[in-house]
Amino acid sequence: MSTNPQSDQAGRVVWHQGSWQLEAESVTLPDGTVVERAYVNHPGAVVLVPLLGNTVLMLAQYRLPFKRTMLELPAGTRLSDESWLACAQRELREETGYRAARFTPLGEILPILSYSNEVLAIYLAEELTPDPLPMDADEQIEIRPMSLMKLIDMAHNGDLQDAKSIVAILRAARHLNAF
Amino acid sequence: MSTNPQSDQAGRVVWHQGSWQLEAESVTLPDGTVVERAYVNHPGAVVLVPLLGNTVLMLAQYRLPFKRTMLELPAGTRLSDESWLACAQRELREETGYRAARFTPLGEILPILSYSNEVLAIYLAEELTPDPLPMDADEQIEIRPMSLMKLIDMAHNGDLQDAKSIVAILRAARHLNAF
Repeated sequence: MSTNPQSDQAGRVVWHQGSWQLEAESVTLPDGTVVERAYVNHPGAVVLVPLLGNTVLMLAQYRLPFKRTMLELPAGTRLSDESWLACAQRELREETGYRAARFTPLGEILPILSYSNEVLAIYLAEELTPDPLPMDADEQIEIRPMSLMKLIDMAHNGDLQDAKSIVAILRAARHLNAF
Repeated sequence: MSTNPQSDQAGRVVWHQGSWQLEAESVTLPDGTVVERAYVNHPGAVVLVPLLGNTVLMLAQYRLPFKRTMLELPAGTRLSDESWLACAQRELREETGYRAARFTPLGEILPILSYSNEVLAIYLAEELTPDPLPMDADEQIEIRPMSLMKLIDMAHNGDLQDAKSIVAILRAARHLNAF
């Protein structure tokens, strides 16, 4: 492999939105060309598989980039100084109205390598009891309980399209020996 | 579900990079608040599972957002007016030096719902013969052939972190009845 591109300076923020920024850097390529490259600088997020019996609490959530409602697992961005587990508990309560007595980590995934440094930590959430927190004002969310077996099929056959949800469902299924 | 946020105007481009732009829109929330929200407007990309016997041609590629080399499948962004299949063939030749006589579509996934409208089309690429195209000048890529069975394990146990590669490997494995 040739020499990696060298980053010449700290990123300059070209857009700031909530917890993330788009940051641009000047990069010198191996042939000497200098180009500017930007990526989303992100604090990381959690994705949750909340399990009630054989049912997973999925969400129907409006997503502006697609101008439509998408089927996905509960997920949310980490606050500054918030631990991953505290983030998991808070987002679960905000988005589903339940707290979990048991969280099992199922690894971390990187949703986009080319223009974001976001890391997503996956947790299986079990032993759920009602304990809601208020939802974010700008979120449009409806809970859709679905069977784990049906979701495994949808993850494989393409009916489930959200990448984080596909990976989290298949990791949870494997952990639970559901296939 | 409450009324979806209304987009008030066409997006204004706040950053342009290669084939994608970051576009900002004014959005009116159900409570009347007007906020600005930006997302990556992306032409779509392909992710490829190039199979040579029981070996998958993985890549080690330097990724600026993580400042390190990542293990991932070949992938690339669609040119304007390029068909998905033409994009798949071009990216395969550029990144691996092979052409495929057979492409099998394995569905589409959405890597990020909250700040990008990117769609990734997955293809299994088989019946490979050498037929290279020049690589993009700013890409730092090395081919890493790996066994499909090992990659399936890595997709499950967390050793493979790139979300698109995890989903594509598990879809290919299922298609090939490899597990």
